[in-house]
Amino acid sequence: MRRFVADVSRNLTTQRRRNSATCVLQHSTCSLFSSSQSQSSVVIPVRFLNTTSVDPSMASDYSGTPVTLDTINPKVLNCEYAVRGEIVTLAQNLQQELKENPGSRTFDEILYCNIGNPQSLGQQPITFFREVLALCDHPAILDRAETQGLFSADSIERAFQIFDQIPGRATGAYSHSQGIKGLRDTIASGIEARDGYPADPNDIFLTDGASPAVHMMMQLLIRSEKDGILCPIPQYPLYSASITLHGGTLVPYYLDEATGWGLEISELKNQLEAAKSKGISVRALVVINPGNPTGQVLSESNQQEIVEFCKKEKLVLLADEVYQENIYVPDKQFHSFKKVSRTMGYGEKDISLVSFQSVSKGYYGECGKRGGYMEITGFSPEVREQIYKMASVNLCSNISGQILASLVMSPPKVGDESYESYFAEKDAILSSLARRAKTLEAALNSLEGVTCNRAEGAMYLFPRIELPKKAIEAAKAANTAPDAFYARRLLDATGIVVVPGSGFRQVPGTWHFRCTILPQEDRIPAIVTRLTEFHKGFMDEFRD
Amino acid sequence: MRRFVADVSRNLTTQRRRNSATCVLQHSTCSLFSSSQSQSSVVIPVRFLNTTSVDPSMASDYSGTPVTLDTINPKVLNCEYAVRGEIVTLAQNLQQELKENPGSRTFDEILYCNIGNPQSLGQQPITFFREVLALCDHPAILDRAETQGLFSADSIERAFQIFDQIPGRATGAYSHSQGIKGLRDTIASGIEARDGYPADPNDIFLTDGASPAVHMMMQLLIRSEKDGILCPIPQYPLYSASITLHGGTLVPYYLDEATGWGLEISELKNQLEAAKSKGISVRALVVINPGNPTGQVLSESNQQEIVEFCKKEKLVLLADEVYQENIYVPDKQFHSFKKVSRTMGYGEKDISLVSFQSVSKGYYGECGKRGGYMEITGFSPEVREQIYKMASVNLCSNISGQILASLVMSPPKVGDESYESYFAEKDAILSSLARRAKTLEAALNSLEGVTCNRAEGAMYLFPRIELPKKAIEAAKAANTAPDAFYARRLLDATGIVVVPGSGFRQVPGTWHFRCTILPQEDRIPAIVTRLTEFHKGFMDEFRD
Repeated sequence: MRRFVADVSRNLTTQRRRNSATCVLQHSTCSLFSSSQSQSSVVIPVRFLNTTSVDPSMASDYSGTPVTLDTINPKVLNCEYAVRGEIVTLAQNLQQELKENPGSRTFDEILYCNIGNPQSLGQQPITFFREVLALCDHPAILDRAETQGLFSADSIERAFQIFDQIPGRATGAYSHSQGIKGLRDTIASGIEARDGYPADPNDIFLTDGASPAVHMMMQLLIRSEKDGILCPIPQYPLYSASITLHGGTLVPYYLDEATGWGLEISELKNQLEAAKSKGISVRALVVINPGNPTGQVLSESNQQEIVEFCKKEKLVLLADEVYQENIYVPDKQFHSFKKVSRTMGYGEKDISLVSFQSVSKGYYGECGKRGGYMEITGFSPEVREQIYKMASVNLCSNISGQILASLVMSPPKVGDESYESYFAEKDAILSSLARRAKTLEAALNSLEGVTCNRAEGAMYLFPRIELPKKAIEAAKAANTAPDAFYARRLLDATGIVVVPGSGFRQVPGTWHFRCTILPQEDRIPAIVTRLTEFHKGFMDEFRD
Repeated sequence: MRRFVADVSRNLTTQRRRNSATCVLQHSTCSLFSSSQSQSSVVIPVRFLNTTSVDPSMASDYSGTPVTLDTINPKVLNCEYAVRGEIVTLAQNLQQELKENPGSRTFDEILYCNIGNPQSLGQQPITFFREVLALCDHPAILDRAETQGLFSADSIERAFQIFDQIPGRATGAYSHSQGIKGLRDTIASGIEARDGYPADPNDIFLTDGASPAVHMMMQLLIRSEKDGILCPIPQYPLYSASITLHGGTLVPYYLDEATGWGLEISELKNQLEAAKSKGISVRALVVINPGNPTGQVLSESNQQEIVEFCKKEKLVLLADEVYQENIYVPDKQFHSFKKVSRTMGYGEKDISLVSFQSVSKGYYGECGKRGGYMEITGFSPEVREQIYKMASVNLCSNISGQILASLVMSPPKVGDESYESYFAEKDAILSSLARRAKTLEAALNSLEGVTCNRAEGAMYLFPRIELPKKAIEAAKAANTAPDAFYARRLLDATGIVVVPGSGFRQVPGTWHFRCTILPQEDRIPAIVTRLTEFHKGFMDEFRD
């Protein structure tokens, strides 16, 4: 402390010496060199304070603004993300309680059905993918004899191929900000094989999961609260959170529960006009297909209508296609919006389209790896450069995630050593998910006052619950939403964690919850029993 | 297309049916359940459009706003990030040219000295770290006999320990949004060992590199352009980019090149008062120590002054400490700002402090892994919950990066099987970096009109160049900044990529460039020769 005082006095002297110099310097404007400068003539100068000499007598009574809820960015305060909201905090507390006092409850574990996080509930990773990742992490063992005994021949070969694609063979280096070019080539080939239409590696932006890609597009498109984004209701709360954080307006369109969460163009039109009449400029339409939390899979003809709508209304189509591998019914199939639009004869000039994909979902469920990409088509070179610039500020996404994204888009093929085990693992996961979806759907539909649409895809069920008036009153008395009240009681009685429908938004006056289909299959009967018993007891307690 | 027309007519019918229903629903306000609702009474409702019935005749002439440079978020347009700016694009083109026409230039490779990306220039990863990561990626081999031959005993043991720390032993699951608790425990212990003061795992937020942590704090603190952040000039352009993207104002404070880029409190005070007089509310002070791009290491007494200043002025101290392991001179040492403030007797209630750390820097240089953390102290529980909510929207950072962040904060210890090889690898990298820094510094100082401060730490040199008037005129004629003109000519003549000082900002009228010390040691003599020859030729060409 003594040293501090001494230093201050030294600085008071230098302050006087420096004051005049800095003032002169700061009257000039910095000449700034950047990529954007060469790209366009509309660059607005950075907001960079040009300070001028100030009366030093003002100094003494200045004080900063302490960081409180009243002084932080209100957009942060507004933002909501129910998937990890209060119910999860309660569950974590309960888990701690069970750890400290085993046997204190009628159940002995917390079942996290609130989030699409398969490996947290025991799903095993696909062996081939993990073999390649391990070899890429520690290439020193690639040439060792013991490695042949531990890893499949095609995983070793694939690791060598990947190293050939990486500049300097360096998995520990920042990559190109869109991701390693060779990996983007592989992903583009995978998209071509899926869709039957060309894909350009330069359209691919690899990201840490799909979430940063969604944020990037919202940040690009939203200028103020006068910019709107059409979002389905119910929706995955990343969209409402991201729109809120970037200061835009969520323009809701309601999916029709009565027709299996159908997406009606008339509803889109109605909401677009309504938004326009309020002075909102709608920039984009979010479509989640397969749906989250609804689990519906759009028909190709419906997708065509959506493409036509976006083309006509000049909306960017933001297609959340992260559940493209999660379809459980034989009469439905995944079609990417890019394929649908190309099949309609529409190209780059007709529609701006972004497709989000993630390694967190599908049969792979590699949530912790944070891999993903967006494919952007139908944007001008100037706008694409701006998107590239945004990506470059964070340098690049993680390389393991990049590698994994390339692997899920180019898994082992017939004839590869790993193919049979790979296919068996994949098939076991997907067919088990389909069975689990069906069992849980049937169980929910058998409950009094519960109706649950068919789980065609994704990882969730979104049952509707008709709550007795007494339950609604009890919720009101507890100062919480009725579906949150139900979810808390469910957690308390069974250890099962679901997300109240209000976290996804829903038609006002209706109540739902989202429950994943992810608990391991041998746990499903017990879950059904616990859920059924709880629900019966709940209804008995609150029956009108 | 025929199907589309048919569907539209169907939907026109349903539209009429639905219009009245949706309107009624939308007049109600959604009841929203979220974590924030339970946290505070100041929650502002989400901006969620409540649409009402609209005259359908308005529908026909509505059209969206196409995505052009004029209609995207101007903050994105404003944002600049020179480290990956135009010079890098030119370098990439040149690299392609060399690939297609080898021998077309007097040099045969591009040397990327623009970015702190050690492994892209041949630095090898630390073996122990990569062994543990590989084992965590593919735990199936942990128990296999061949693994003993391929991996060190302590890497296998560490992998087992890490699996014990991960709920469900699942490296493929989303973790707690702050990162896996057990890994945060390890990091907190590492901080305690470094500083000699307690660290709380609940203060740690693991992030994908340090960049997302910086964005998170800017997003939290900046409400509008009336909020200012004090930043050093020259600065790492992540800060200016992030402040611009979040709509705040960068309040510059100039480091004093004459005193080895000294940080003078008088300058901070002067700029703070100047900002206040312009109606700017300054929220935080960014300090980069060791400095980027300047390479200076702050003295402890200087750090004490900074802490005192932030405490007095109620500024959040944002301490970029990612180069904490990169110090090359015996008379300087790294002291974390937390340690300094605790040594001064200041605790949680006295100062809000954020320390950023990254696995990309240090002797590890694992840029591609995107690991990092921030340690936040001195924030109220309510504000911390808001920071947690922001983290939760993106679910979690990548698990490999999380594991690596725990490893760099708890490397092998004396007695561990890997210790000797680990220490030898680390020492070889750091002592080589010190030699490279010294050689390049001397070479630069020997050039006509160039002065370069001592590289005490970090990974960069930031020499000042006195450019002849003719060169400045030539730059003007080429419509570019003089230092950018110099950097382009350097690239064109030698293949060496540096970043013009204007990308980091500098005292107007002075010119610099940033050059990393990262090329492998055996390349340094050739680089010095190429640089010296180029500079001589350049000065001869433009000498006044």
